[in-house]
Amino acid sequence: MQDPIALFERARAGDRRALARLLSLLEDDGEVASRLSAHLFPYTGNAYVIGITGPPGSGKSTLVNALARAYRERGETVGIVAVDPSSPFTGGALLGDRIRMQDVAGDPGVFIRSMATRGRLGGLAHATREVVRALDAVGFQRIMVETVGAGQVEVDIAQAADTVIVVQAPGLGDDIQAIKAGILEIADILVVNKADREGAAATLHILRSMLSLGQPAVVRHHGRAMTIQHVEPSRAGWSPPILQTVATTGKGIPELVEAIERHRIYLEESGEGEARRRRRIAEELAALARERLWARVVHQVGRARLDGLVEQLIRREIDLHTAVERLLKEL
Amino acid sequence: MQDPIALFERARAGDRRALARLLSLLEDDGEVASRLSAHLFPYTGNAYVIGITGPPGSGKSTLVNALARAYRERGETVGIVAVDPSSPFTGGALLGDRIRMQDVAGDPGVFIRSMATRGRLGGLAHATREVVRALDAVGFQRIMVETVGAGQVEVDIAQAADTVIVVQAPGLGDDIQAIKAGILEIADILVVNKADREGAAATLHILRSMLSLGQPAVVRHHGRAMTIQHVEPSRAGWSPPILQTVATTGKGIPELVEAIERHRIYLEESGEGEARRRRRIAEELAALARERLWARVVHQVGRARLDGLVEQLIRREIDLHTAVERLLKEL
Repeated sequence: MQDPIALFERARAGDRRALARLLSLLEDDGEVASRLSAHLFPYTGNAYVIGITGPPGSGKSTLVNALARAYRERGETVGIVAVDPSSPFTGGALLGDRIRMQDVAGDPGVFIRSMATRGRLGGLAHATREVVRALDAVGFQRIMVETVGAGQVEVDIAQAADTVIVVQAPGLGDDIQAIKAGILEIADILVVNKADREGAAATLHILRSMLSLGQPAVVRHHGRAMTIQHVEPSRAGWSPPILQTVATTGKGIPELVEAIERHRIYLEESGEGEARRRRRIAEELAALARERLWARVVHQVGRARLDGLVEQLIRREIDLHTAVERLLKEL
Repeated sequence: MQDPIALFERARAGDRRALARLLSLLEDDGEVASRLSAHLFPYTGNAYVIGITGPPGSGKSTLVNALARAYRERGETVGIVAVDPSSPFTGGALLGDRIRMQDVAGDPGVFIRSMATRGRLGGLAHATREVVRALDAVGFQRIMVETVGAGQVEVDIAQAADTVIVVQAPGLGDDIQAIKAGILEIADILVVNKADREGAAATLHILRSMLSLGQPAVVRHHGRAMTIQHVEPSRAGWSPPILQTVATTGKGIPELVEAIERHRIYLEESGEGEARRRRRIAEELAALARERLWARVVHQVGRARLDGLVEQLIRREIDLHTAVERLLKEL
């Protein structure tokens, strides 16, 4: 196998194939990934990370494409990470729809990486973080992380971004189902894409209702009146703006770039950016420590002892809390 | 506050309000929940747990309703846990649509519990497990856990069930998007509900293609030809059957009950059921141990030391792996 450190140096020098291989090593996890991750770390912390999420059909990829072009025009290099936690498709065709990406894909200042789960759902958020850090370390200035849906994994992934953009679009069949509270709570900027389509005003209205405070909004859903629980704005001092775009024509993109810039400045001036980075790294530290601690327990008490405890649990001779207490006493 | 153990005894004696309060205590987490959970544990392990998941609009609630009625006719008591990891709606109306549940809700042999995230997405799988165990402990014989979607949380929740049913329906707008690989991999039984509707044959075909081995299937999606990656059957010796139901009329329900029974017998005879229970309890033990270990670390090294490490990480003076190593050395 190639020396991972040498691979990193070549990637930093602009070798795209080396970069692709580097990312694969990091995705594989294990000893090499840990060593590489440790080596990369001092080089990170310079990129601005933008998370973009929304339901299928909202035009995320086209929007990411348009944003990438805008940043390229400003002379910035762009890394794109497209994550689909549930894609059963080879090559991630559904999420990425990379054909539409062609105009940016030929540009040496843009690097696109698709990530799918391949059976390790739980580790995807972690793997995405490693990939983002690697793109940061090799020098990409803007990194966009695109995810689909509104599950826990997407929330985890989005929370690794400096600015989180939640994309909606009219006519996605069921507007209300598409707007998930979990994801709205983490939105720094809301975008109604395909704003030239019928129903854009209604989508805008629902988003405004969900974001506004005061009386709960009542909207009609399939003819039934429904009460919408209000989403507390998550960031004191920042009200998520709702923008309208038509990513295919570029309409509203300059305003979106501008809104991201305003959010960046807000993060910087309010100290919220610093607080977020601190929270994020503290969480990563805790997660990694938990894993290592457990590995240590397994090593110390041995598989046989663990199996014995599981056996007692199965027979209901002890309960989970007692089992854990005994385990920790034996350390 | 009421004595939780007394509450449990009353719930076991059939007091539904006591049961509801008991579940709330368990959902709240913390010291009381731990003590209660430990107390309940010896009483668990008797219920048969069925997980039911699928996209919005697939008719899951009606199906759960129909299954509940079938089990009631056989004289079994039924607990229903409806989990919506992303519902922004008060009372969980969207998922549960409890109006349709009325005919079973009045029955003292049926208990229905709705669970929403209320901001603690990560703990939902754990909380659901606690609620299922409590229903088991107070004597419900069949427990159905209903979740929407296909995210990590749903997979976690479904994996706590003995038999996992994945429900699809024709005409959900985008058949392919609705069929997520992650969720198919955990399906023991597949159901095409609303099988009397147009498009049922196509939905059936897609599911069969995804489950079959051999050549990848090519299906048309919005006019584009797409290659479907095959999903490896997760259980050796068990091929997930694909059934058709019309839950509103009860068509196909006896066959579904029969398929669940066949799966139960398969689990028992093959030893797979035992293996699954063992795996599940081992995972719960590991998860709880990780949490306790981390709490211990925080207590031992102190918040100030952790903050110091985070500070060094922010300044890129050390990397995550080094930080964790130092932390563990100090214990």
